[in-house]
Amino acid sequence: MDQETSRYCSNALSVWITDAFAGCGVAPDDAAAAAQVIVRTSLRGIDTHGVARVPAYVDQLRAGLTRAQARPRTSGNHGFLHCDGDGALGQLSASTAMRAAIDQAQETAIVAGTVSNSGHMGALGLYALQAAERGLIAFICQRTPPIMALPGATARAIGNNPIAYAFPVPGGVPLVFDMASSKVARGNVLAAVRQKAAAIPAGWAIDPSGQPTTDPLAALAGSMLPMSGHKGVGLAMLVEGLAGSLSGMDYEGPGAAGAMPGGVATASAFLFVINPDHVCGREAFDRHITAWTAHYLAVSGVEARYPGQRQARCEEERLVRGIPMDAELVGQLRQVGSLVGTAFEVERLTRDGASAAG
Amino acid sequence: MDQETSRYCSNALSVWITDAFAGCGVAPDDAAAAAQVIVRTSLRGIDTHGVARVPAYVDQLRAGLTRAQARPRTSGNHGFLHCDGDGALGQLSASTAMRAAIDQAQETAIVAGTVSNSGHMGALGLYALQAAERGLIAFICQRTPPIMALPGATARAIGNNPIAYAFPVPGGVPLVFDMASSKVARGNVLAAVRQKAAAIPAGWAIDPSGQPTTDPLAALAGSMLPMSGHKGVGLAMLVEGLAGSLSGMDYEGPGAAGAMPGGVATASAFLFVINPDHVCGREAFDRHITAWTAHYLAVSGVEARYPGQRQARCEEERLVRGIPMDAELVGQLRQVGSLVGTAFEVERLTRDGASAAG
Repeated sequence: MDQETSRYCSNALSVWITDAFAGCGVAPDDAAAAAQVIVRTSLRGIDTHGVARVPAYVDQLRAGLTRAQARPRTSGNHGFLHCDGDGALGQLSASTAMRAAIDQAQETAIVAGTVSNSGHMGALGLYALQAAERGLIAFICQRTPPIMALPGATARAIGNNPIAYAFPVPGGVPLVFDMASSKVARGNVLAAVRQKAAAIPAGWAIDPSGQPTTDPLAALAGSMLPMSGHKGVGLAMLVEGLAGSLSGMDYEGPGAAGAMPGGVATASAFLFVINPDHVCGREAFDRHITAWTAHYLAVSGVEARYPGQRQARCEEERLVRGIPMDAELVGQLRQVGSLVGTAFEVERLTRDGASAAG
Repeated sequence: MDQETSRYCSNALSVWITDAFAGCGVAPDDAAAAAQVIVRTSLRGIDTHGVARVPAYVDQLRAGLTRAQARPRTSGNHGFLHCDGDGALGQLSASTAMRAAIDQAQETAIVAGTVSNSGHMGALGLYALQAAERGLIAFICQRTPPIMALPGATARAIGNNPIAYAFPVPGGVPLVFDMASSKVARGNVLAAVRQKAAAIPAGWAIDPSGQPTTDPLAALAGSMLPMSGHKGVGLAMLVEGLAGSLSGMDYEGPGAAGAMPGGVATASAFLFVINPDHVCGREAFDRHITAWTAHYLAVSGVEARYPGQRQARCEEERLVRGIPMDAELVGQLRQVGSLVGTAFEVERLTRDGASAAG
């Protein structure tokens, strides 16, 4: 086993995260629901958005930037629901909204919805997957604060506004796709700064005067560049309009109309769920999606996969062998444990999935 | 005036195109509706998808690949409509579906729909614009035959599946965005071949063995590359699932279940229209979209525009000064005119919008 990395049992991690959130005052059921999303994100290999975020989430709960006692409330009509996150952890508000949409889509062809006053939702593909595992199509996007701009911009113009969707694939794992509109995630610039790297690749970012830069500090002070220039901006604007302008919140900032006071949980989202049974019928849908995914895989080379297949394989493996975490993250989790009064004593696994001594 | 380019009155062009389609057997009202979309596409400066396509559309009508006598039929419930294009010109079936969705969205928050058995729809932004000009949000995407693949693919894996959307912007022109998922349009490769260019830029295409190529002929035989690698493929798959798998048609080819016989009009689409009045209320929507478009423009440099502004300005100018067309296109239109018995005698304009002699 790698000296720096240990593998931890996902169930035990889930129990510990539940306890840690509960230690911050989150109701046990809500804590468990959020923990389940977070751990599954790591199980599927999306390590940047899973357990690694727990220290930040606990900080936000303790600082009141997300509300431990929040009760996300869903209401709606006209095939459109709204979930007021009430300042909750994003995992909770997004799951609540998606579950409501899934329920309503049993009876109807399409259910759309918005989420407001929410903490950051992490990896959006997880919520779309919830729906696809029940035979439904789902799309979800989240508005983020401005972080991105085209060359020439003198301030951050728009968020990198992630998008995710999932489809059920008959006889296969769901197709799940998740992306943001920036060329690369800002985390890459943060990492370069932390590692005191001399340069970042050209094309990632611009400096505060709007000029392209490879200097990590100038990039940090500036804006991330969109993927594919204007196309990336156009996709980010789609999300701004759906997840932002329809959310009932004001644009930007604490104290904005409709927002929680004090800058609490300012994220918002848009989603829709479609039930193929009520559109073209299950058989026609299954036949079409089976045919095009098969064609795509057949012609795309021996290593070809559709989005979601690699994550599903990773989940299968990590359910047995555990979730790998490096010493730095484990140290942070131990610190969280002592802060919230729930010591980080989570079972480690060996490579073959047996419990590791110690 | 440029020796090669003349400007033609858009109203007169519209009348002539109506007559040309009617000369192929299209009912006058339908011919006028299709002509209106096509001419407006050119008015807005999208010259590749406007009047320049009329010769191809007439060829398709005459060959029976689109059906002159088609009657697109819209049906639906559960907030979801379906428009069977019946083999019509894409401009007709897409407009019919969008108009039905706009009508239904007066009463409800979201109306989605699919279009099947349709001719190619041209520039999708035009249909989204129809909705935004009535205060509604619209999204539309069209499935295309496979044309795109990642390096290593030995055949075209998936379409470049265009996406468009539009939002109403209070006090401004609608925000309209339109893109395909390929790095560049295949028309660029066709042009390079036609012009016997020695090379195309790297990153546009792969050859039939899946290797990146700059040889125009190898690119023509191969596949177009997606924008932003896997992200472009992921967006194309979203469209394949929504516009393809929900359409009720079979994947690919004439004779596919649900398709017209003989490979007639195989395009399909997905769309949704949202009425902000029934979601968060008009005032909240207007306030939010006004704020973020203003922020975007304020920080993005002196030349900054949001998508749709340049097209709107072009439309204003061309309504007065006419639509510029080069001698080659005019020659093709004259040929169309003699084929369908409607001579191309369309009023030319001078730069200041007066009728040009001759």
